[in-house]
Amino acid sequence: MPEAPAAAALNALMDPRSVAVVGASSNPDKAGGRPLQYMVQTGYEGALYPVNPNRAEILSLRAYPSLADLPETPDVCVIAVPVDRVEDYIVQCGELGIRSAIVFASGYAETGREGLARQERLRAIALANGMALAGPNCLGMLNARTGAAPTFTTALERGPMLAQGPIAFVSQSGAVGAFLLGMIQDAGLGITHFVTTGNEAVLDLADYISYLLEDAHTRAIAGYLEGADGARLVEVAKNALARGKPLVLMKVGASRAGAAASAAHTGKLAGVDAVYDAVFRRYAVTRARSLEELLDFSRSLSMSVLPAGAGVGIVSTSGGAGILLADWCERLGLDVVDLAPETVERLRLALPWFAGRRNPVDTTGRPLWEPEMMHDALRAVAQDPGVDVILCHVGLAPGPGRRIADELVRAANAVGKPVLVCWLREVDPEPHARLGRSGIPVFSDPVRMARAASVAVSYVRSRGVARDRTVAPTIAVVRPVPGGPVVAEHDARRWLVAHGLTGLSEELARSAADAVAAAERIGYPVCLKLVSPDVPHRSDIGGVRLGLAAPEEVERAYDEILASAGSGAPQARIDGVLVTEQVTEPGVELIVSGFRDQAFGPCVLCGIGGVLAEVMRDTVIRPAPVDREEARAMLSELRGAALLQGARGARVADVGAAASAIVLVSELIAGVTEDVETIEINPLLVLGEGRGIRVLDALVTRKAREAHGRAR
Amino acid sequence: MPEAPAAAALNALMDPRSVAVVGASSNPDKAGGRPLQYMVQTGYEGALYPVNPNRAEILSLRAYPSLADLPETPDVCVIAVPVDRVEDYIVQCGELGIRSAIVFASGYAETGREGLARQERLRAIALANGMALAGPNCLGMLNARTGAAPTFTTALERGPMLAQGPIAFVSQSGAVGAFLLGMIQDAGLGITHFVTTGNEAVLDLADYISYLLEDAHTRAIAGYLEGADGARLVEVAKNALARGKPLVLMKVGASRAGAAASAAHTGKLAGVDAVYDAVFRRYAVTRARSLEELLDFSRSLSMSVLPAGAGVGIVSTSGGAGILLADWCERLGLDVVDLAPETVERLRLALPWFAGRRNPVDTTGRPLWEPEMMHDALRAVAQDPGVDVILCHVGLAPGPGRRIADELVRAANAVGKPVLVCWLREVDPEPHARLGRSGIPVFSDPVRMARAASVAVSYVRSRGVARDRTVAPTIAVVRPVPGGPVVAEHDARRWLVAHGLTGLSEELARSAADAVAAAERIGYPVCLKLVSPDVPHRSDIGGVRLGLAAPEEVERAYDEILASAGSGAPQARIDGVLVTEQVTEPGVELIVSGFRDQAFGPCVLCGIGGVLAEVMRDTVIRPAPVDREEARAMLSELRGAALLQGARGARVADVGAAASAIVLVSELIAGVTEDVETIEINPLLVLGEGRGIRVLDALVTRKAREAHGRAR
Repeated sequence: MPEAPAAAALNALMDPRSVAVVGASSNPDKAGGRPLQYMVQTGYEGALYPVNPNRAEILSLRAYPSLADLPETPDVCVIAVPVDRVEDYIVQCGELGIRSAIVFASGYAETGREGLARQERLRAIALANGMALAGPNCLGMLNARTGAAPTFTTALERGPMLAQGPIAFVSQSGAVGAFLLGMIQDAGLGITHFVTTGNEAVLDLADYISYLLEDAHTRAIAGYLEGADGARLVEVAKNALARGKPLVLMKVGASRAGAAASAAHTGKLAGVDAVYDAVFRRYAVTRARSLEELLDFSRSLSMSVLPAGAGVGIVSTSGGAGILLADWCERLGLDVVDLAPETVERLRLALPWFAGRRNPVDTTGRPLWEPEMMHDALRAVAQDPGVDVILCHVGLAPGPGRRIADELVRAANAVGKPVLVCWLREVDPEPHARLGRSGIPVFSDPVRMARAASVAVSYVRSRGVARDRTVAPTIAVVRPVPGGPVVAEHDARRWLVAHGLTGLSEELARSAADAVAAAERIGYPVCLKLVSPDVPHRSDIGGVRLGLAAPEEVERAYDEILASAGSGAPQARIDGVLVTEQVTEPGVELIVSGFRDQAFGPCVLCGIGGVLAEVMRDTVIRPAPVDREEARAMLSELRGAALLQGARGARVADVGAAASAIVLVSELIAGVTEDVETIEINPLLVLGEGRGIRVLDALVTRKAREAHGRAR
Repeated sequence: MPEAPAAAALNALMDPRSVAVVGASSNPDKAGGRPLQYMVQTGYEGALYPVNPNRAEILSLRAYPSLADLPETPDVCVIAVPVDRVEDYIVQCGELGIRSAIVFASGYAETGREGLARQERLRAIALANGMALAGPNCLGMLNARTGAAPTFTTALERGPMLAQGPIAFVSQSGAVGAFLLGMIQDAGLGITHFVTTGNEAVLDLADYISYLLEDAHTRAIAGYLEGADGARLVEVAKNALARGKPLVLMKVGASRAGAAASAAHTGKLAGVDAVYDAVFRRYAVTRARSLEELLDFSRSLSMSVLPAGAGVGIVSTSGGAGILLADWCERLGLDVVDLAPETVERLRLALPWFAGRRNPVDTTGRPLWEPEMMHDALRAVAQDPGVDVILCHVGLAPGPGRRIADELVRAANAVGKPVLVCWLREVDPEPHARLGRSGIPVFSDPVRMARAASVAVSYVRSRGVARDRTVAPTIAVVRPVPGGPVVAEHDARRWLVAHGLTGLSEELARSAADAVAAAERIGYPVCLKLVSPDVPHRSDIGGVRLGLAAPEEVERAYDEILASAGSGAPQARIDGVLVTEQVTEPGVELIVSGFRDQAFGPCVLCGIGGVLAEVMRDTVIRPAPVDREEARAMLSELRGAALLQGARGARVADVGAAASAIVLVSELIAGVTEDVETIEINPLLVLGEGRGIRVLDALVTRKAREAHGRAR
């Protein structure tokens, strides 16, 4: 992992007072021309130094023959030369004490081994000199506040420069980054910084986010990820949480998270991407699923005031849009509150007689012509004690748009609660610009506004719950995991019992007579189960027989199981048939499993297990280990949590014992050697309150791909 | 319901060759000025007749003192006068044989009884004269093809007129309609017609849709609904299906659908809006949940070729956007196909060496500068036999945008498969306009493009399955429903048994001794259940005891049930305790229920029942009655369908018997008197194959609000 350069170097890169461009060109279609042209256009007030030995002047700026000739040491050096000349310049930057550099060129790690070596050399030079190096293979960056634009993205050719505002964007993709910049322009979003990270030879996404967490002008950070180191991501997420600065991340690419656990049920149930959700949730990171969501969510999360609760007041110039908003707010878990009688009375005074004065408030179209009416209505609703956030649908304002914007701003400022507005862009850009400058987010679709508001409410709620859990293990791994790529039921169960869980009375039988004798010792009823390292899901091939109450039944079941195995899995090695006690006590079947995620390491999952497992696909994941409080929280987050709480007259389950089992499994996966991929209990039978749990079946898998391949 | 005026009258309204405006004004801020001004701007080629006794000329058009003075009978008369003068003009229109009129004024049914009477008079005059009357209280309409714009919506003040294209919009809301029109403008969407329906005194949403179904220029119809008559909606949906013309509807306002069934479980499980989903699904109507979806979905559904299957080819100038699209396509159930070796070879020849030639294809940014490369790549992918629809991410095109558009059009025309494009608007509008004219839908966000594509795939699939089922009842209602607002278990069950379902051996006991005697006759084990008209969900208060295997247990259970009832529902009337056989045979518990929906009438629901019902909330609804084939389809659509198919070694359930029970309940709800609101079996125990079903519990509710109130 890159070691972070000093803060001063990073600051020189992100907020430069002077910018040198090597490979400077007056041709605006060239990578060495664009940054200069853009910075001339933005009115960047820092010093601009084109470096080009063949020109005296570029774009009316004095050009210098070499970096050594500059009148001062620039804060950042933009390296806009072909790949084979980059290294020399980086060396020179180091010698001259230039603290940061941006490398546009491609031809590095993305092209293969030779390129990787080239990149490693850049990295070594930069680190040796404490230089903050951005890229290579990046589009550069933008500081909207100062107009510093050391970037060659063509997005800036499309039109006006970016508006200033409280959001910072960091993208791991150049092309997606440029597209995003276009979307930001089209949406009129105000930003502090925009960064593309390129190949991340030195500075990576987490470094930029860490910088932005310290940046006073940035209120929310939006990131586009294609892949990142889990531990580093967790670190910045923790920092963001500690600073109360919202982080919105969009992650593309199906992660391999679940793949490791695919031999067990865990992978199938949880889906490949669930670990990101779990980690994001734990640290109150908001997840965006599309670029529009990335924009919308960062917009609402960057408001200067966030909603204190889920109470929504809707003020709409259109009855239909009000109903639509109310529908969606309910669907999104927001509370379309009943307005207090005083609020309704105020609205009566403020609005025409034919207006709707209940929530959603239908102002009618009149405020579009009499903007003070908009102020009065908005203010009345916002002052209602039940209202935490206000959604205002203006729609289209053919009349005095600027005055409407002013009245909205006046009302929002007066009440100190967050206001979101839905309003299509007018021919006159000024109304939207005024709202933007006042930190009021504007949307072009009511549903997107409602969703952005709900995300802000969720963020505040999860920020309150989330905390940095450093869980001290309560148990030690007292016995090594038994050998083999797949550890079958009784071995796995015995290993878990050795760590404190309750198993079953059981004996392994290798003949029908053996099985009957075992059953007599254990006591009827019993179960018979095929034992084979090659058949992880025995019930699929008829390898499990339950409720055997007499010797004849045991004998017959034994023979049938072997026959089933012979036809259902003819290649499988058979170790015997396990005779176990049959637990007749009613309970709820869970799945509890520990597994190893590629990005985030050990994780623990609990879910509805047994035959319902795949039908319900109801699981909750956390990074492991967890403590009892978090284990209980996991259980309560299951959609099927009611099953544990005694749904419809059933007995309340021993949730405490289930939580303890989750804690144990989480500590085991965190404590065992790295070759263990999954420790899965399915089903874990949770008995009635005070009666504990029973491990009915268990499976441990190890890294050994060939063996897995054969077993499936 | 309005009776439809003759087709010729509707045609005069929607495609007028001449337009008169009464209340005509040269002030473009007035309702009588705007339509004239707009039609002057659009270059409408029909005749325009301002009617104003005080002016000789309006907007350079000759004005006429009265309708009687016009040189011809206009096709449509726009009535832009205050409400109190409207009726006289409508009378006059009738006398003059004017076939259609549009009334802008408000002050009708929306304002109360007097307004309603006023509206009824308009309606009577219009119907008497066979006049197609639009409104009152509407914004009018637009014909983008001819430029006829008899509307006063301010949306048209925002900028250019609408592009021509294959989509028609109908909105029941004026304000939302205007907003939608703004969105249509901003998105550059091409349309045929745009209609706001207003109060629907004569013509309603269904009439306009029926017209548009016949309109040769309209390929897809998008509607915004606030409320509509279910039967009329079903009628147009059937017609749309028969004509193969996609219908996209957005419905706001939580419907009261589920409310009627709220005393039973049905309402809680299905949610208030599920019936719309069910009806839309049956007739292949695409449902939009937001205005953006209404635009996006109608855009993809109006393509001249729709996808023949779910195979997607992704061609992206950005690797990241390609991954994002692939992620989403998978999530949306599309198939990101493996490209054939020949395709990969063609791509190798077409693209730079460092391009990605697997699906999603990463063209790199080069085609943005060499547009023929875009053509070649797109064509190669589109010709792959596995590919049914192509998603092309252009992103931003700083280079030759028009040529890129031309090459995309050339490739799309050559292959005859649907192509969707994601491309932010350029400064030059021409590239997007060219794509639009060629019927290639353009999106500004990759995820929205993917979702729109998936909707087109779903439409084609569901159009193939959907058909107009006229189900002939197979049974007659042989016994009237027993009396009372809530018919308790044994009465309800007996009634169902009388119609052919299998119940349980049972006796009602009024003392512990009675209960024991009954148990002895029925045979152990037995169940005891509280019988009270006031406690529909007995297990919630401990009113159910299962698995009683001996006389002492029955005696104790009886006493405990009465004690529980005394504390849990002290006000409840107690009829006794039912002693029933306990079915020990394993099976799957379903809920099957018939209920009456406010908009669509009798419906049938099946779902996972018993204790899992509320945990899983897994239900499927259809309009009732259904036949066996549809009942089987309902069962297979359950998320928990695997439970019936013998999940993980369990026995396969008697799906045929379950389907028969659904058919029966669907016919009962369709056949009984309207006061019966719900007929609910929960649980319906589905035994193993060939073993049939058992009605374990049932409930019938009637309209009788007070009684319900007390019972809950």
